[in-house]
Amino acid sequence: MLVKPSIISGLVRLTSHSPSSSSSVLRRQEFLVRTLCGSPIIRAMSSTSEADAESVLRTVTPSLDLKRHKGQAGKIAVIGGCREYTGAPYFAAISALKIGADLSHVFCTKDAAPVIKSYSPELIVHPVLEESYSISQLSEEDKREVQDKVLGEVGKWMERFDCLVIGPGLGRDPFLLECVSIIMLLAKKSNVPFVIDGDGLFLVTNSIDLVHSYPLAVLTPNVNEYKRLVQKVLNCEVDEQNAEDQLRSLAKQIGGVTILRKGKSDLISNGETVKSVSIYGSPRRCGGQGDILSGGVAVFLSWAQQLKSDPESPSENPAILGCIAASGLLRKAASLAFTKHKRSTLTSDIIECLGESLEDICPAS
Amino acid sequence: MLVKPSIISGLVRLTSHSPSSSSSVLRRQEFLVRTLCGSPIIRAMSSTSEADAESVLRTVTPSLDLKRHKGQAGKIAVIGGCREYTGAPYFAAISALKIGADLSHVFCTKDAAPVIKSYSPELIVHPVLEESYSISQLSEEDKREVQDKVLGEVGKWMERFDCLVIGPGLGRDPFLLECVSIIMLLAKKSNVPFVIDGDGLFLVTNSIDLVHSYPLAVLTPNVNEYKRLVQKVLNCEVDEQNAEDQLRSLAKQIGGVTILRKGKSDLISNGETVKSVSIYGSPRRCGGQGDILSGGVAVFLSWAQQLKSDPESPSENPAILGCIAASGLLRKAASLAFTKHKRSTLTSDIIECLGESLEDICPAS
Repeated sequence: MLVKPSIISGLVRLTSHSPSSSSSVLRRQEFLVRTLCGSPIIRAMSSTSEADAESVLRTVTPSLDLKRHKGQAGKIAVIGGCREYTGAPYFAAISALKIGADLSHVFCTKDAAPVIKSYSPELIVHPVLEESYSISQLSEEDKREVQDKVLGEVGKWMERFDCLVIGPGLGRDPFLLECVSIIMLLAKKSNVPFVIDGDGLFLVTNSIDLVHSYPLAVLTPNVNEYKRLVQKVLNCEVDEQNAEDQLRSLAKQIGGVTILRKGKSDLISNGETVKSVSIYGSPRRCGGQGDILSGGVAVFLSWAQQLKSDPESPSENPAILGCIAASGLLRKAASLAFTKHKRSTLTSDIIECLGESLEDICPAS
Repeated sequence: MLVKPSIISGLVRLTSHSPSSSSSVLRRQEFLVRTLCGSPIIRAMSSTSEADAESVLRTVTPSLDLKRHKGQAGKIAVIGGCREYTGAPYFAAISALKIGADLSHVFCTKDAAPVIKSYSPELIVHPVLEESYSISQLSEEDKREVQDKVLGEVGKWMERFDCLVIGPGLGRDPFLLECVSIIMLLAKKSNVPFVIDGDGLFLVTNSIDLVHSYPLAVLTPNVNEYKRLVQKVLNCEVDEQNAEDQLRSLAKQIGGVTILRKGKSDLISNGETVKSVSIYGSPRRCGGQGDILSGGVAVFLSWAQQLKSDPESPSENPAILGCIAASGLLRKAASLAFTKHKRSTLTSDIIECLGESLEDICPAS
């Protein structure tokens, strides 16, 4: 990797910054130095390497500052939650807050809303989505009107969000998924990044054009979801022997979206670089950990996006940085929760460890 | 009890296993040695003996391993929860998770679902069962259609579950119980084990054919439920003087199902062996402890079933092992909760002690 003289002069200029911003500047400086010295983070764009997740966490996490106001540390929205599933969108949304986002919204069905609201008063829960069963008596015209209303309710908020998480507890209702398809189009139109997980991946796998070539899309498939993606997009089976190359091909084939393949090691690619995160972790496989991850990717991606306006910011793709940071933090929190709760560790216990884990890596003051 | 040479050679072979599996192999080896030496667990198939519950717990509880993925440590479903009762299915389902299952579902009525969901985001709660009052206006044909829909909703999940718990908070609504009868048939058809408790026992006592000769059925009656079972099946009263023999006869009469008779000592029989668990315990008799037990039996039975594929596994019936393990763990957790909370000990307090109690007997790492 060639080092541009402008980056080096930028590094030198960093020392002249005001004291109030010195902490974050220093962190970015440290990041640049690692980059220039060929740290594992960005050693080679075409080879796999273990990411230095802690370093990425320190880089993307913004300094807290009394001058900042509500919303600047991130406004996240989860699109998910239906009559059947309410835990998953809650886990994603509350994780975003616990990591440090300022505001976390959930857009779910009318049935799911009171339940998700009851889990926590911290969330803003919009009961706006509709499932087929609640509109089955309507004419096609009236259904279209319902759809327009749903899209209006979500759309009016769209530009206020830094990132969406689409899919946790979404279910597979056709009418609902059709609305969510259009929500993705709205997000793309407004350049709002989104993380696709759970049933959102079911939707996207069957309609890959929804995310194709959108550089702000992140997919976070588990073993089975990844298998279906590979079959659908690459027309072959998962090749564990060439996991990194296959992941890179898959991401490239979908036009450079970022894919975080969850597993014993998490593998991350945008069709060019491939990074892995293998640190820490817990052997407990209780359901819901993927929801923490999706909420975490949304927050860290938002923070990494904010860094882009800084001329001294790392040049790495914000989506890649968001995935590395979220994967690293989840693993550390899961490990900490496991030391406390052992076999009885549940997803809520891991969420309770997010703050302590992040503080350990990246102290707030 | 004769010792087969093949078992001894199996024991010898155990020493050559890889280090990664040595912990679980050693536990099974220890179990076999106890068996061969005539430990209290399986001393004689025809006499009652106090089970070594801690040893059984160590044997059936799987090692945790980073390579495992979500679901492999158990997927449990509770069939229960109606307009009147919501606590019982929650206690059973959350206990399964706290002991170490990966996923815990509840299938309940539409009224019960939002409440059960609100107790914990960790559970997946399906609002699919129907009670008579909600379909009283329907024609017989429409009622049949509703029943088909209920069965379809439960049936499509059936093969994914390792064990069902049928009965906690089920209520006694005739339409609902008819659906549950057919759910039992579906479970038997798919060879899914089930634990019958609470109102599930009311149903089964009146229709004993539902479980007759199904070796993967476990009934967990309390004093009154046991009394009705004995009256119905054996046409006599409970005989405390010959409790073990009567229990064995009862289990045999129902075709070799496993019965866990709850009491000062828990007695367990499948019509052949009779085991008792008398350790630990708490003098507090708050409602809900039976629900913990039923959820626990489901998890441990699932784990004991997994052992069956291991050639070095104990030969004891998985249902018997599941009952011994769950009884022992509940007693230990209840005892621990009582030392902390005394007279104010509630079922939730005992559930909070499940993890610590299991960890004490069988450390996760």
